[in-house]
Amino acid sequence: MGMHPFGRFPEKRLPMLGAEAVLAALGDAALRPSDIPIAYSATTQAGMLAGQGILREAGISGIPVTNVENGCASGSSAFREAYLAVASGRYDIALAVGAEKLEQVVIPGMGRPDGISREHLTQLLELGEVMGYVETVPEGHVGTVLMPGVFAMLAMEHMQRYGSTVEHFARVSVKNHEHALANPNAHRRRRITVEDVLASRPISEPLTLYMCCPTGDGAAAVVLSSMEVARRHSRRPIRIAASALASAPYSSRDLALMDVNSVSANCAREAYAEAGLGPEDLDIVELHDAFAPAEMLHYESLGLCAEGESGRLLDEGVTRLGGRLPVNTSGGLLAQGHPFGATGLAQVCELVWQLRGRAGERQVPGAKVGLAHCLGMSAACAVHILTR
Amino acid sequence: MGMHPFGRFPEKRLPMLGAEAVLAALGDAALRPSDIPIAYSATTQAGMLAGQGILREAGISGIPVTNVENGCASGSSAFREAYLAVASGRYDIALAVGAEKLEQVVIPGMGRPDGISREHLTQLLELGEVMGYVETVPEGHVGTVLMPGVFAMLAMEHMQRYGSTVEHFARVSVKNHEHALANPNAHRRRRITVEDVLASRPISEPLTLYMCCPTGDGAAAVVLSSMEVARRHSRRPIRIAASALASAPYSSRDLALMDVNSVSANCAREAYAEAGLGPEDLDIVELHDAFAPAEMLHYESLGLCAEGESGRLLDEGVTRLGGRLPVNTSGGLLAQGHPFGATGLAQVCELVWQLRGRAGERQVPGAKVGLAHCLGMSAACAVHILTR
Repeated sequence: MGMHPFGRFPEKRLPMLGAEAVLAALGDAALRPSDIPIAYSATTQAGMLAGQGILREAGISGIPVTNVENGCASGSSAFREAYLAVASGRYDIALAVGAEKLEQVVIPGMGRPDGISREHLTQLLELGEVMGYVETVPEGHVGTVLMPGVFAMLAMEHMQRYGSTVEHFARVSVKNHEHALANPNAHRRRRITVEDVLASRPISEPLTLYMCCPTGDGAAAVVLSSMEVARRHSRRPIRIAASALASAPYSSRDLALMDVNSVSANCAREAYAEAGLGPEDLDIVELHDAFAPAEMLHYESLGLCAEGESGRLLDEGVTRLGGRLPVNTSGGLLAQGHPFGATGLAQVCELVWQLRGRAGERQVPGAKVGLAHCLGMSAACAVHILTR
Repeated sequence: MGMHPFGRFPEKRLPMLGAEAVLAALGDAALRPSDIPIAYSATTQAGMLAGQGILREAGISGIPVTNVENGCASGSSAFREAYLAVASGRYDIALAVGAEKLEQVVIPGMGRPDGISREHLTQLLELGEVMGYVETVPEGHVGTVLMPGVFAMLAMEHMQRYGSTVEHFARVSVKNHEHALANPNAHRRRRITVEDVLASRPISEPLTLYMCCPTGDGAAAVVLSSMEVARRHSRRPIRIAASALASAPYSSRDLALMDVNSVSANCAREAYAEAGLGPEDLDIVELHDAFAPAEMLHYESLGLCAEGESGRLLDEGVTRLGGRLPVNTSGGLLAQGHPFGATGLAQVCELVWQLRGRAGERQVPGAKVGLAHCLGMSAACAVHILTR
């Protein structure tokens, strides 16, 4: 696998970002462009047939290329389609690439969820560093749901119900930024303190700027193959022990804590069953921390701790590097960044580096089992378990 | 399989259009929503996570849902992903749905290909009934490539090279409109003459309005399964004998006749090889006639006749109902319509109706082998061969 670093790259076109990740992945797998018989591409904002442009730029054409979109879980979904293509027996090898340039996103400014004030909305639109997501709302119109507002409400609910605090949220951000210091591909590489997080610009109470993922550009690519082919290329191939994808019956309009938890919990349950493993077997986790409170919600939904116990898990340092179960060693969406189409594949890259023992200063010693979790709004959830 | 008719349905939201096709397909397969374990959805214009909304509307959630986009071949690509999901052995059954509301398309009006005058551009933008396609052009900006202009150039090249005439193009339209008269799902159901076609509004010389597909709304859905499951549900299951998808190294900017021909020819060659069949074995063909001259190009690229011989094939009446090899018995994109995401799946519906002997007045007697061909700009080409 390979990545193009996440961040701001105004000088690079999307096909070039994607192609650099593809070429890095091919180099890592010791394959040539002509060795790839099928490819999947994930972007959410690039318009029609973007993947074909990325692959053409990487010297790959003629083969089946399919563009996959599942909101913020697009990269994970491309990975899963590549997995199914190999599983089908028709292809020995498949490539998944995800790329995004988020600076191009236009926020139409239509619609406004109840939980966010007009003042906050204006602030967000001006902010540039945090943005709304465009989705089709139930009425069939294209509206803007500002995810910070949604997650602010979920955070409030968690605080009321379980006694979590804004300091907890701040510590999630501090931890993930700390992890990102050792990741050359991370968008935000700066040491921050709890005080810095709390003092950063308010976004949607209780969220502050550093509790929200940045918007930027980036790309990631992964080559999958049958185990037989993988063994020819690597002494220590990484195995996909589970690939689960779930959809939810909810729209983000009326999203409550229980809903977010249940779609992730259902999807994780399927993945654990498929792998024949449980949360107790995990050594590392990359999960969907688009907003700091989300990381805590997902400690619970993925079964890393009991319901309401995420604050304690954080207090005990379990999920930081050096703890029993490091979460988001890449820096997560909060600090590595979140160029939608690329994110799920970057999670896979991080797991593979860790499972190979090649994660450098952020290596989790002896990591053997890793889980990646990615959400597309509230409508799609992907959980993959990788083992060595 | 099932369809929502193609046409103008301003009162219906996209999820409802899609859900009606899904429910029709479930009814046809005698399945309940809860019997579907995985689904693929194709739309090109509906924004993020549209498929989850369609399936929710049809009472399906919780399962893996993946949105697939390959331009005008999106529906064919969703069909192929569903096929691979079943081939993987993980799923016995898979659903593919495609839906589109094209009245919502916005033409940004940026960019202009060389072969089309500013006057034509303005005319097209005002026209409403024929429109531009939005794509990412090589420079990385979003531009508008007006496909009528591209196909007008290809038509000119074909006329010069092989002596085809505007009357040939008009007769393609007349034939496909004639076929659509017997298709209750068709968008344009009116008898037209060669004179009507030639006298209709000029679009981009030599194309006139009736040589261009209409823009409208519609949906189509197909249930696929392993042959074992299919045999339980049907005495006469339809077999997918080949599923080929190819990409091309060209951009639409510099598209020439040879390029369009070669991507389709390569993809068809793969499909014929996979099925162990050749063009001589086909009883019916649904092909990508977004513009009348395209139908003639694809007679040649799919090997239905030799290079340059498409005019003769048409002259001899081979491809009309009653001829040796009827093409676009549904009315094709020209008369059945072309709501992008739905088109490729509607082609499959038509083949299945024909192969079952249930195509009513447009039935091709004894049809046993059918081919569907769909192009996504010049970047993607899908060819499926179905047999009974």
